[in-house]
Order: sequence, then C-alpha cells, then structure tokens
Amino acid sequence: MELLEKLCQIHAPSGEEFRVRDFVVDYVNSNSAQWEQKPQLYYGDGYQDCLLMVFGEPRCGVMAHMDSVGFTAGYGNELIPIGSPSTGETAVIRDQRGKTAEVYYDNMDKKWVLKDDINLQPGSTWTWQPDFSVTEHMVLSPFLDNRLSVHMLLKIAPQLKDTVVAFSTYEEMSQAGKAGFLAKRMYEQWQIDKILIADITWVTDYVKAGSGAAISLRDVGIPRKMFRDKIVDMVKASGVSYQLEIEKSGGSDGTMIGASDYPIDWIFIGAPEINPHGSIEKVHLADIESMMGIYKYLCNRL
Amino acid sequence: MELLEKLCQIHAPSGEEFRVRDFVVDYVNSNSAQWEQKPQLYYGDGYQDCLLMVFGEPRCGVMAHMDSVGFTAGYGNELIPIGSPSTGETAVIRDQRGKTAEVYYDNMDKKWVLKDDINLQPGSTWTWQPDFSVTEHMVLSPFLDNRLSVHMLLKIAPQLKDTVVAFSTYEEMSQAGKAGFLAKRMYEQWQIDKILIADITWVTDYVKAGSGAAISLRDVGIPRKMFRDKIVDMVKASGVSYQLEIEKSGGSDGTMIGASDYPIDWIFIGAPEINPHGSIEKVHLADIESMMGIYKYLCNRL
Amino acid sequence: MELLEKLCQIHAPSGEEFRVRDFVVDYVNSNSAQWEQKPQLYYGDGYQDCLLMVFGEPRCGVMAHMDSVGFTAGYGNELIPIGSPSTGETAVIRDQRGKTAEVYYDNMDKKWVLKDDINLQPGSTWTWQPDFSVTEHMVLSPFLDNRLSVHMLLKIAPQLKDTVVAFSTYEEMSQAGKAGFLAKRMYEQWQIDKILIADITWVTDYVKAGSGAAISLRDVGIPRKMFRDKIVDMVKASGVSYQLEIEKSGGSDGTMIGASDYPIDWIFIGAPEINPHGSIEKVHLADIESMMGIYKYLCNRL
Repeated sequence: MELLEKLCQIHAPSGEEFRVRDFVVDYVNSNSAQWEQKPQLYYGDGYQDCLLMVFGEPRCGVMAHMDSVGFTAGYGNELIPIGSPSTGETAVIRDQRGKTAEVYYDNMDKKWVLKDDINLQPGSTWTWQPDFSVTEHMVLSPFLDNRLSVHMLLKIAPQLKDTVVAFSTYEEMSQAGKAGFLAKRMYEQWQIDKILIADITWVTDYVKAGSGAAISLRDVGIPRKMFRDKIVDMVKASGVSYQLEIEKSGGSDGTMIGASDYPIDWIFIGAPEINPHGSIEKVHLADIESMMGIYKYLCNRL
Repeated sequence: MELLEKLCQIHAPSGEEFRVRDFVVDYVNSNSAQWEQKPQLYYGDGYQDCLLMVFGEPRCGVMAHMDSVGFTAGYGNELIPIGSPSTGETAVIRDQRGKTAEVYYDNMDKKWVLKDDINLQPGSTWTWQPDFSVTEHMVLSPFLDNRLSVHMLLKIAPQLKDTVVAFSTYEEMSQAGKAGFLAKRMYEQWQIDKILIADITWVTDYVKAGSGAAISLRDVGIPRKMFRDKIVDMVKASGVSYQLEIEKSGGSDGTMIGASDYPIDWIFIGAPEINPHGSIEKVHLADIESMMGIYKYLCNRL
Repeated sequence: MELLEKLCQIHAPSGEEFRVRDFVVDYVNSNSAQWEQKPQLYYGDGYQDCLLMVFGEPRCGVMAHMDSVGFTAGYGNELIPIGSPSTGETAVIRDQRGKTAEVYYDNMDKKWVLKDDINLQPGSTWTWQPDFSVTEHMVLSPFLDNRLSVHMLLKIAPQLKDTVVAFSTYEEMSQAGKAGFLAKRMYEQWQIDKILIADITWVTDYVKAGSGAAISLRDVGIPRKMFRDKIVDMVKASGVSYQLEIEKSGGSDGTMIGASDYPIDWIFIGAPEINPHGSIEKVHLADIESMMGIYKYLCNRL
C-alpha cells in the first residue's frame, strides 16, 4: 500500500493534475522494463495535463481521473469548492506547500468557513490534509477517489496488454472534464469504441463494502444495454466477485463520453466507498482486490 | 395506422433503441425496392444503436429520435425515471418481455411508486403499456413522441430524394443524446449544414391541436434567425398548414446540435401533443398530415 | 468612443449576431489597408454568423462574443429572456426596427412584464434601448458586455500580429455557444492551443472599477494552473495595471472551450462592469485602457 499512500499525498485538485501525471510518468519509467508490454506514454504539448499509457496495439480503453475535490481561496477567506467536497464535517486542509488550516461546514449559511485566524492567499488551492491508514479490512485516506484507481492500474500494468489507459483531468467539475478530448484521441488513433471507467462509487443500503467492485448499470447516464449486458456476462464468467449498482444520480467521465461526438460505449466499474469526497474516505480491501481482478480480466479480453 | 401501431408497441427506452432500429431496417429492406431513391442504411459497428438512412446525394438532414421515456427498476422496487415521464397519473408499465405492473406518482414524496405486491428485478427497464387507438380526429398512444416522426419519415420515404435521415438515440436524457455524433457524421461525409428536427411538441393555450405542425422559433435553444426566417418563408410558400411555437423551456436533438462543434443550423418542426410523456399521448390527425406535408416539401428543396 | 457608440447601437441578441459581424467586416475592409498585418476574414458559408479575423501566421487566439442578452416576445406579450437580462429594473426595450416598449421586472411572479398597452409580435426579439454616454471616468451604455471587447480588438487591430481573433455567437445562452466550433477551427487550421477570452466581468467588493482589467483565476470553470500562472506572470511583467478575480459562479466562452474535445487552454481577461446585463452597464475608462494594454502585450508574445 506504499504506492497508494504516496499517490494520496499528492495535492492535485482539478486544474493541477500535472502532479499526479508526473508521479505516474516517473513510476512507469522506473518500473516498466520487465512488464509484459512496455507502455508508450503520451503527454505534454497537445495533452494539457492528461496522460495516455499505451500497451501494445490497444483494442480496449480504460479511463481514470487524476484530480480530487478541494477549495480555491477567494477574497476574504472565502472557500470556493472545487467539485463537491463532502459537507458536514470539520477537517484540516492544506495547500501545495503543506500549509494547513482548519475548516468546517456551516449548515445555516451553506458554505465552508475557516476556523483559524489566518489569511488565505486569494487564488491559492487547498485539499484535504493527507491521513493514510490501513486496518484489517479497510483502507482510509482522502482522495481514494480516484487515486485508488490510478494505483490499481499501475499494479496491473505489468500484465496489461493491448490496452490504452487514459488518465483524465477535471472530472470532479461537472461537465468540464477532458474525457471527451481523450475519447476523441483514443477513437481516432486506435479506433477505441469502448472505455471502462475506473472510478470510485458510494456504499449505500444496497451496494455494500466488501461485496466486490460495483458495475454501474446506470447513474445520470445510461450505458447502452447491449454493451452493459455483455460486460456483466463477462465479469460473471470471470469468477471475480462483483455487485450491480443502479443509481439515479451521480456521473463520471462516462457521462462526458456518452455526450461526446463519438460512438463510444462506456461503463463504470469501481469499488464503493464510505464518506465519498470527505476528508477520510474508506474502502474495503476486498473491493480493491475485486476491482483489480475485474480490470485484469476485461482488459485482455474486450 | 398499422405501421404506427407497430412502432408504438416497441419497448425502447433510452439505451435500448436497437429494437426500433431493427424494425426500421427490416421495414426499409422489405419495402424500398420501388421507392424513387432506394436508401442506403448505415448502422452497426461504429454507430452504436443509431441509424442513418441516406437517399441519393444528400443536401438536407432530418433527425428523429427513437427512444422513449421509461423507468429503470432500482433496488427495493425504486422506480428511477429514464428521461421525464409525465407525473401525476396512475398507469400500467411493462418490461421487455411484457410483464406488467401498476404504478402511480406520489406527489408528496415526488417519486413514482409501485402499486402491486411484486418485486421488480433491479436493472430491468419499464415503459408504458402499449394502448393504441384512433378516433375521428385523434390518435392516442404512448410513445407518439417520437414514433410518430419515425412513422412519418417511413411514410414519405418513397418520395424522398437527396436527404439523409438520422435516427438518433438518448434524446430523452438531457444532454446525453448522440445527436452531436450523428451531426458530425452528416457534416463530415455529406457536408450537411442544416438539420430539421422531426419530433413532437406540446399543445398549449397558443399551439393548438389541429392547427398544423409547429415550427418552433425557440425553446431553450434559439435557431439562427437567418435560417428560421428562411424555413418559415418556405413553409408559408408550400401552402401546408402550420403554426409558430415560441417556448421558454424544453429542448430536443436541436439543442445538442446547437452546442456541437459543427456549424450546423437546426429547427424543430413537429406536431403538438396532449399529455406529453404520459401513458396516453394524443395527437390530432390533421397535424400528422401537416407534418408529412412540410417534410415532403422541405426535404426536396433545402 | 464613436466606434464603441456605433457598436452599442446594434440589435444583436443571441441568434442575430450577423449584424455585428457585418459591421466588423465593413470596418475591417474600410480601415485595414495601413495595418501592420492586413487580416484575412473568414465568414459566411460554413461559419454560421461567426467571424474569424486572422493576422499573419497565428500562434495565439482571442475570442470575443458578439451577442447580447434580450427578449423573445412569446404569445400574449410574454417576455422570454434571451440569456439573463438583469432583473429588478424598469427599462425601455426596442426591436430591430426601432419600435420601443417599456418593461419592468415583477419580483412576485419572477418575470418580465410589458407596461405599455401594445401587442408584441410573437417571435420578435427585443434588446435594451441604446443610450450611450461618457463621463469623466466612466462609459455608460447597454451591451458594453461585450461590444467593449469587440471595440477593443478593432482598436488594437492595427498593431496585431500572428493572432487569430474569433468573434463568437450564442455566448449569452448557457452551453449553447459556438465557442467549441471556433476553437476546433482554430486548433485544426493553425494549431491554436491557447485562447484569451475577451469579455466583461463584474465589479464586486474585491474587483473594483478603475483598478484594471480582471484576470479571472476561476469562475465555474478553472483554467489549468500552469497556464494561468504563466499569463499572470506575463501581465505582471508588462507593467499594465490589472486585478485578479476569483469567482464561484459565472461562465464564458472559456467554459465551453474547457469542456470541448480539444486540448486548448483558456483564460478570461476583461474589464469589470457595474450593473451587468442591465439596461445601462458602466465601465471605468482606466479599465478599458488596461484591457487594451494587456491584449496588445499578450497577443504578440504568446
């Protein structure tokens, strides 16, 4: 879990994903010599802060976002959310240099308030203070959404073949994500017409921690029935544990791909977490195992 | 009206449009031998569940969506709307195998509730129970929005020339429609820069049943004035009855085309209906005639 | 200010931008003979009502929208907003032929109401009555948003080099703007991957009239940190006065570019105004000077 812990220490709210990108680039360059297929990396000019990791001759796409929720400091210590940080808790936030501040959510005024008597620099950005731990069954940390998926993909990378993994930006900001750009690149260069969305979802009364990664049959978006049925059948055949999720709200990079100008199928497959977008998110270790198993199985078969 | 009745029996909520597509493909293959121009059909790989029906060398585009509103069954018999089914009525719904259930809208809780003591399979989809009838002046059925437009296009197909008809998907789901993908294909392959949106609108105090198909001057989107003026002038010249609609809300595939990355004009022309998205929609026969007349006139002249 | 006054007299709500386009085309054709680089104009077929003004071999993009807020007359004298006209005032509106009518905002019913006993033609469009004046420090007029930016660009045009200026449409209508189309054209033809958004923002407690044009670090969208830091550094180096804006709401053509399928950076730089979208908007003359200085400096260096 050392790799995951490192990923969860990176300050990367939407707009500052380059720090996760740099980490992944370094990791791949340092570790990929013995992988079954050494991936090519596409990033830099023409990619903004996005990153493509391409194994062999890709027939299947996976997308995982690199950004987290957070805050922009406005004038007068205003805390402007980046994405949707979980409300209703008191927590410590930090900026890119490690300076910290305590904040709480004011339920009357419906806004985040600074507790400390300090002045935040207008325009500075803040994310939850890193705080990583592992218990017998659970991993606890901010940003498991979505560093867990980044981690999972690096962990199965040594066995990945003929797959393109897109690390995306701005997913936490409704309808601002660069998923459409990445989907376009993947479609035009490798004719990728199906993308698995590696992301983290919610534990609910019906989707339970420990019962396996969730395959989402719908959220605000609805994957094409022909495609989702095929995926569910394949995962069933894999023998890996999984759950089916049916949600009325929530979206992902898949929402942007669905609305894109490309005929690309998508489906969300990811571990459920407790306290989504909160300062401590919790995921069951069995669901991480399940996610790893499902992606390993699907990526070489789709 | 036999053809329309058949179309209205198809279970095709957003995500399951393939059933309407298959019906249209079969119909065209069985009937087009004697048409003035036998259309080419584009569908399957690279098209998701969409369908293009191409007559001659197209200069004009028409778009009609194939999906209907409906419900996804969640866990615990939750009824999650697909699109916006009309609230405030008690009705029978059915799944793809014809199993039925009675539901009503709970105005207090603002949600749909199952009346029967049965268990809906999580992930299964439901649409209004087919119930088709024709009176002296009206046709009554669920899904007139938008099977009526599909029907209209098949009816005028024998005379259509140099037109591309796009049958689209996911229109009922706000901003998830594949209209942008289809517009892109039409623009890139045939330089189509104007698309008529064949869809069904609402009877209001000002747009009346029986007064002709409505040309919409605006809804949430606003077509370019130069284009809408030209279309209105042409329809006026055609001698076919019509009405002008000016709405502050509501959208269509045209909204997606307006927001697309392509310089394509669009305008909504369609019959108004009573009880939109309800279990029984009603359209005046004269407005169907008007719609047919307008499209027949415009498609060969634009 | 004669040129600005003329621009502010043009009736051009979203959908009728062709009148501003025609004005700019005429102006450029009449005045560009002695400019450092005579620009090429792209408009007409394939551009809807948009316009590209291309200097030399462009490496930098600027975008300024041509449309204003306004009203569509519905049936029964209903006033349907085009974009978001400022509420809470009584004002005179006029149509394209100069016919006028007095209107006020009904705070109880949350809608605009006609005061005069006349009948508005359904489908006709209305904008604020022109009313232009200049005081010692301020310019006052409707439509400073965004005719001021169009004016600014025409004023610095004689010195512009290797820049493409895009005059866009439908910006006032949320998510309907053609910014994505223009960004695509600029990217594909000239590999433009950075666009400055020339538009007008709001005077607030922290962004003051007279303190310089505002560089927006964020609104609903967040520009990429690497890019916004670079721009702020450059403007700092230019010696031109400026302010930093940090907003939680509001969008611009930049929002559409951020959500587009192209890897294009954007940042909003514009003068703040009092009474945005109102019948009289007010901008400080020093902020116009600042805006001119910043664009002149950046366009030749980016």
